[in-house]
Amino acid sequence: MTCGETLAFLREHDNYLVLTHKRPDGDAIGCSVALAEILRGMGKTAWLPAVSDATALFTGYLEGQQAPGGFVPDTVVSVDLAATGLLHHSVAGYAGCIDLAIDHHPSNEHFARELWLEADKAACGEILWKLAEAAGVMNKTIADALYVAVSTDCGCFVYANTTANTHRVAAALMEAGADYKRLNKKHFRTKSMARMRLEGLIMQNLRLYHEGCVAVAPISLATMEQAGAKEEDAEDIAALVGQIAGVHISATIRELKIGECKISLRTMAEMLNASHVCARLGGGGHAAASGCTVYGTVEEAERAIVGAIEAQLTEDGHG
Amino acid sequence: MTCGETLAFLREHDNYLVLTHKRPDGDAIGCSVALAEILRGMGKTAWLPAVSDATALFTGYLEGQQAPGGFVPDTVVSVDLAATGLLHHSVAGYAGCIDLAIDHHPSNEHFARELWLEADKAACGEILWKLAEAAGVMNKTIADALYVAVSTDCGCFVYANTTANTHRVAAALMEAGADYKRLNKKHFRTKSMARMRLEGLIMQNLRLYHEGCVAVAPISLATMEQAGAKEEDAEDIAALVGQIAGVHISATIRELKIGECKISLRTMAEMLNASHVCARLGGGGHAAASGCTVYGTVEEAERAIVGAIEAQLTEDGHG
Repeated sequence: MTCGETLAFLREHDNYLVLTHKRPDGDAIGCSVALAEILRGMGKTAWLPAVSDATALFTGYLEGQQAPGGFVPDTVVSVDLAATGLLHHSVAGYAGCIDLAIDHHPSNEHFARELWLEADKAACGEILWKLAEAAGVMNKTIADALYVAVSTDCGCFVYANTTANTHRVAAALMEAGADYKRLNKKHFRTKSMARMRLEGLIMQNLRLYHEGCVAVAPISLATMEQAGAKEEDAEDIAALVGQIAGVHISATIRELKIGECKISLRTMAEMLNASHVCARLGGGGHAAASGCTVYGTVEEAERAIVGAIEAQLTEDGHG
Repeated sequence: MTCGETLAFLREHDNYLVLTHKRPDGDAIGCSVALAEILRGMGKTAWLPAVSDATALFTGYLEGQQAPGGFVPDTVVSVDLAATGLLHHSVAGYAGCIDLAIDHHPSNEHFARELWLEADKAACGEILWKLAEAAGVMNKTIADALYVAVSTDCGCFVYANTTANTHRVAAALMEAGADYKRLNKKHFRTKSMARMRLEGLIMQNLRLYHEGCVAVAPISLATMEQAGAKEEDAEDIAALVGQIAGVHISATIRELKIGECKISLRTMAEMLNASHVCARLGGGGHAAASGCTVYGTVEEAERAIVGAIEAQLTEDGHG
């Protein structure tokens, strides 16, 4: 469907439940809240599910948005949801009866009766902004929610998925009252002390191979404990080591429990295909980011991944 | 002057030398290159000074932009320069004969014959973009240079100085061919190994006071050596500690040489005025970011700044 067709659909229906994917990120939460508010601005009843597994960073945005007990929707809409398998188990029962999906994932599985897909958008929030414009509905809650959606999905306009449209939507949201100073500080300029200490320990324990082109960062259970870090403090930690100048291949080894290590491998894909390396250890993924599990100590996992990298480089003729 | 008046001025003159401030950052380098290229697009001769003290991060952008030996300018224009005292010594002789200044600093000292000042802009690059538009001159070099200018001055759109206009200019530059993926990776997603190790050591040596609200990060000469860090690896390091969740007041102590420590203080201005604290130690600055020098060891500097913070909190009634 187009934007205009979606708006017509939304005007015809009522009593909305807005679903998104489990472990919702900023785009998922922001789009959910924005759509519910846009629908309310159109005179409709709209709620998010009563149960959410959002992390502490995002729960604040859900205040007043969750369905009261006994709410039975007439219309179910999903946002930022690529497949029904990604629904939280508490709403998995709606998988077969989603009336409309609004999404930006090229991999959307066409599970809904109607679909508005714009796969060129960095964030689903850019699509919701278009809807708000077309509906003529805007308020501070919508502006904040969509700024969260758009900014978090492109790492605050630094990732390669950022487009000119992403910037123009951000500009419009700032003019519509989005509290971007507070939101940027919260999402991009705040780290827990445990995260800071964890990053410090990783830098201290880092080992380089192949004249500094390969970096391996072991994160043992002891390291996590020393940093006072919980699971959420280690989120996206594999990106850290990949930032080092001159490092083209980086492996982050997480000891999940005694005898089990998860390895995240990031590579400059044109130099080394990460999925080929991880396949040697029973894993897989994408050319630039892959993973595998090694059953053994952190030291054994390090030897395994370094060996696999060297074997693959040799096979590719870069050894 | 307005944009139109500036354009008329530039059309009337020729043989340009484009100056900026010493230790030029991305905005200074980007605006210098962009103005020279815009002038060339208008059929003029324009050069940057033959000598530059730009850091390694920015020297690449100067290729082919610096004046050949013997060049004598007829017209001198400055960009992103607030005061002639900030000129590099090699061009300080031009201080009295700057014909036109293009700037965004509210503190511009009106040293030039003509001034185009837009103090509401996050980056001087936003003003230069307006000029390029008015002149009808754009190419990839200008787009790249202005993207560097605009993005680096607002920390890639995360700092509080970012405006809707900043985003709109970024969008236009991306459409004009700016290689933003490569530039973002280079400026915002790459850190030297020494910088990484330095950040790790800072986290390890960090001390908290006042129930975690105050953080003090000592960086001794030994720490710099242990990290293998040069001066450029320590750039803007004071921002690091200010990112810790719950920390409202952060002091970074750099031992510049034996017996001399430079303190950078960052505060949430509504909680504590940083300049009031630093004034107690003979320094000064802004409400949210100030500095001072303490002659003594790192430990003495730490005691001095913690004492000054506590004294000021007590005087303000927050002790």
